[in-house]
Amino acid sequence: MSQEDLIQLAHGGGGRLSRDLIASEILSRFGAGPLQGLPDAATLPASGKRVVFTTDSFVVQPLEFPGGNIGNLAVHGTVNDIAVCGGLPKWLSLSLIMEEGLPLSTLRRILDSVKVSAEECGVVIATGDTKVVAHGQCDGIYINTSCIGELLDGFDLGANRIVEGDMILVSGPLGDHGMAVMACRENINIENGPTSDTATVHRLVLAAQEVASKIHFMRDPTRGGIAAVLNEAVEGRNIGILLREQDIPFSAGARAVSEMLGIDLLHSASEGRVILIAAPDAAPAILKKWKALAEGQNAATIGTISGDHGRVVLHTVAGGRRLVDLPRGEMLPRIC
Amino acid sequence: MSQEDLIQLAHGGGGRLSRDLIASEILSRFGAGPLQGLPDAATLPASGKRVVFTTDSFVVQPLEFPGGNIGNLAVHGTVNDIAVCGGLPKWLSLSLIMEEGLPLSTLRRILDSVKVSAEECGVVIATGDTKVVAHGQCDGIYINTSCIGELLDGFDLGANRIVEGDMILVSGPLGDHGMAVMACRENINIENGPTSDTATVHRLVLAAQEVASKIHFMRDPTRGGIAAVLNEAVEGRNIGILLREQDIPFSAGARAVSEMLGIDLLHSASEGRVILIAAPDAAPAILKKWKALAEGQNAATIGTISGDHGRVVLHTVAGGRRLVDLPRGEMLPRIC
Repeated sequence: MSQEDLIQLAHGGGGRLSRDLIASEILSRFGAGPLQGLPDAATLPASGKRVVFTTDSFVVQPLEFPGGNIGNLAVHGTVNDIAVCGGLPKWLSLSLIMEEGLPLSTLRRILDSVKVSAEECGVVIATGDTKVVAHGQCDGIYINTSCIGELLDGFDLGANRIVEGDMILVSGPLGDHGMAVMACRENINIENGPTSDTATVHRLVLAAQEVASKIHFMRDPTRGGIAAVLNEAVEGRNIGILLREQDIPFSAGARAVSEMLGIDLLHSASEGRVILIAAPDAAPAILKKWKALAEGQNAATIGTISGDHGRVVLHTVAGGRRLVDLPRGEMLPRIC
Repeated sequence: MSQEDLIQLAHGGGGRLSRDLIASEILSRFGAGPLQGLPDAATLPASGKRVVFTTDSFVVQPLEFPGGNIGNLAVHGTVNDIAVCGGLPKWLSLSLIMEEGLPLSTLRRILDSVKVSAEECGVVIATGDTKVVAHGQCDGIYINTSCIGELLDGFDLGANRIVEGDMILVSGPLGDHGMAVMACRENINIENGPTSDTATVHRLVLAAQEVASKIHFMRDPTRGGIAAVLNEAVEGRNIGILLREQDIPFSAGARAVSEMLGIDLLHSASEGRVILIAAPDAAPAILKKWKALAEGQNAATIGTISGDHGRVVLHTVAGGRRLVDLPRGEMLPRIC
């Protein structure tokens, strides 16, 4: 590849090459909205609604994996944080830290994915930033996205609202993203291997809005998987979690890779799933609504809230019981 | 240093070590506000005002330099983008990408600086994220901050509002941040060397609000310096810039380092200055207000808007004229 096909240090220096890169790669894709004229900050309309605000940096490695790349992951991951807090995602920032030598062709594929997924999520790229560091000071590209959303009517979510007897729902198979990335990284090539589930969950949240007041808690089980989410939800409280292994949806591909690597699928990240905890009388309605959506067709009720002080317990298929602990964290680095 | 005094990969894995780090280093400093309970996103009050939104990633090297570090730089840089767009900064996100092996003592100094400068700017850390990458995949720490502000009444800013005859003001000496970082990086130890000007400019903007309608354009001259800002402001238009070198404030330390390194100070970044372009009858009032503030005591009028199509021209002290071009960008990498 010739020098002109690679990111150079000067692309981040604030001079002419920076301007050219932003014009050709950013404004060409995202320049119709508030980015026009490249102000230092975007001025957005007032909505009168409560604002929901989140940020996430993405360092996934490899940059491209079965089912997605760091570009659509950076849109979905951040948009989903807004959605599971009961927000409708509206405005997204896009900040790139690129390594000198990154092929422009890779950057273009990533930005194309950002564009497609932002459109699907209904968010507008409102503001951005571009930095370049020398070879060896970053691994290809790191992306930060921050998102502003508007709070949807009816939602009042929080771990403190969970009570004994509540039901636990998931919108689809768990852990595929983590296993797809790990399979790619470890060069595991199996037939029907796992594909990342990276996707927006905002339609799942909108579908559940009708019974919003009976929904007590929502999260997307990313880093640390469902084990981390559920442990955090009940830690130090007088409630616990009872999961039924036979009811938890897993894909065959994720199962195969998790067994090869010796990783508990309950610790593996999803990037397009929702865990929802609601009053038992609301659960059937949510499940029905979810199953009517393509992204929720494998939704399931996987457990209940128990009185078991702060513990997450799994009833295994074999008939036993085991404690589901927080992962320690070192087995699945750079998964998102 | 022992292993426990360094950032480890598992600090970013979403498990117990991640939680412990966030509790001990983040929540201890910033946990009183919307971060409490660590929701996926922060829910903020509705203001009814128009929202101003910006993002910036910081990769400055070295992490600590005379006058500041990457922590206060990451607050000021982003807050200042809100301010120069006529916004009052309100809510800040804080996203960290850390390299395995980063000393916890360094992280603590940086976060202490974030806390102090956020308080001085009046912004609340509303949401955040922490990632860890392996040794050699980042250079110590990279920080992204995004900021939500509220549009202040009266401002209507844009390069398209600049007209011939307008006056150009700066709030203080230019280029100190860039020269302080470069002197540090190049091991230039001179007496009274430059100190970074990293600081919030929001009080300068508030001070000018009284004549807001007569202010046509504001920017903070960061990467690329005043040369980049002014060239962008007039590029392709039927106006130009005329600068008087003798009126541009520079510190003796910045001057000395710029001469040693052969870098044009007009290309060097400031991180606590404002360039303001206003109708001539408003300029004296702004200058008076600015000079009454500690951060504006060396403010000056440095030039005017000419009819010189898209060109930035400097009248030198020696009596000559030279064109001030956009920097190419490779001379001052990783300055912010």
